[in-house]
Amino acid sequence: MTIILHSLCGTDTKRPFSPHCWKAVMALSHKGLDFVERPVPFTEIPALENGFSRTVPILNDNGHLVSDSFAIALYLEDTYPDRPSLFKGEGGKAMARFVEGYTQTVLQAALMPIIVMSIHDILPEKDKAYFRESREARLGRPLEEVVATRAEAEKAAFPGKLEPLRHMLKFQPYLGGDSPLFADYILFGALQWARVTSGSLPLSADDPAMEWFGRCLDLFEGRGRHVTAA
Amino acid sequence: MTIILHSLCGTDTKRPFSPHCWKAVMALSHKGLDFVERPVPFTEIPALENGFSRTVPILNDNGHLVSDSFAIALYLEDTYPDRPSLFKGEGGKAMARFVEGYTQTVLQAALMPIIVMSIHDILPEKDKAYFRESREARLGRPLEEVVATRAEAEKAAFPGKLEPLRHMLKFQPYLGGDSPLFADYILFGALQWARVTSGSLPLSADDPAMEWFGRCLDLFEGRGRHVTAA
Repeated sequence: MTIILHSLCGTDTKRPFSPHCWKAVMALSHKGLDFVERPVPFTEIPALENGFSRTVPILNDNGHLVSDSFAIALYLEDTYPDRPSLFKGEGGKAMARFVEGYTQTVLQAALMPIIVMSIHDILPEKDKAYFRESREARLGRPLEEVVATRAEAEKAAFPGKLEPLRHMLKFQPYLGGDSPLFADYILFGALQWARVTSGSLPLSADDPAMEWFGRCLDLFEGRGRHVTAA
Repeated sequence: MTIILHSLCGTDTKRPFSPHCWKAVMALSHKGLDFVERPVPFTEIPALENGFSRTVPILNDNGHLVSDSFAIALYLEDTYPDRPSLFKGEGGKAMARFVEGYTQTVLQAALMPIIVMSIHDILPEKDKAYFRESREARLGRPLEEVVATRAEAEKAAFPGKLEPLRHMLKFQPYLGGDSPLFADYILFGALQWARVTSGSLPLSADDPAMEWFGRCLDLFEGRGRHVTAA
């Protein structure tokens, strides 16, 4: 009986980098479940689990399949209610969707122009073509032009976008309060995506937001910290 | 036995406008508690309840005094546990601090240059002097210059700042999930502040964020909607 998490990597299977897969890794670890992470490149996702999903993460819990990181967290909370909660109540579950909104529409949108070439460069050749085509369609211009026109401005503006987190950190060490919850892993996933693909974050070491990120990297025997950029 | 909420107004006591006081009004209404709201101008706050707090809201629950909107919500949750919950669990309580951070550092910071003269203009004369001096110190320049240099750009950028809310509204009608919680009242307070002082919001009527705001205005027999700009 095994729990398998299908996740995403480039040429190096030891460096899974998807923000959404990191959320699932942290959620499984939070629940204290044994699982095997199996990272694959973008172009191998459609063949996973007989074409179950176009995106990872995909969870296979002894034959039960779930895709989408938030759906996986909800599934784990329902299926393993006696293990540490990922939401601590219905309010926490609902507000985690707002944290997801902030993370995706503010942070990930800002990080993409900064790290898009770093992501491209760590992919195997056939993934590079897929990635370039799909992301250039989404971003509306060649990747090199996205970086040339937007990366420096986004880097400079990035620290300011974490002000909501810094305000919160005046009152408590985690989004979950005294200890982390799934909402922390949502935000962690975005910063870990940038860290693993590009090797750095546009934040200073003494920033309270970086200190929070450091605490998350240390969780679960340093599961996040052990994965570094090439 | 009476619950009194000291709040903030300009010359017209029927138009309380403080975002923080609106959070407390909505929290008391959510708990189904009878209370009397007593709005005063800025310069009368120091004399309230024998100088208890430099800021409103101040709650007087039969002699027990509490200031600060979040502290008031926590007090109500602890003191009236059998009435509808404002947080629905410890996770919701913790994440409401993040919503507070987003609302204050992103939304209120953006709205201030847009509405600062509207606020000034509805104040009694002695409040105008206090408001101008304290806000010009905070904003670093004359109010008229803040408006002239920043208001139009902030108006244009404002709809984009609600993207985290719009993402969330794809999944649920309120930050609290199926029904509103204190986190909704936090965000509501910021928009109600702009609506009551300036008469409008820099959002289009068919924006899902405006539809959410409309649902909040309708709560508690239209408590928020009954208060309009002069």
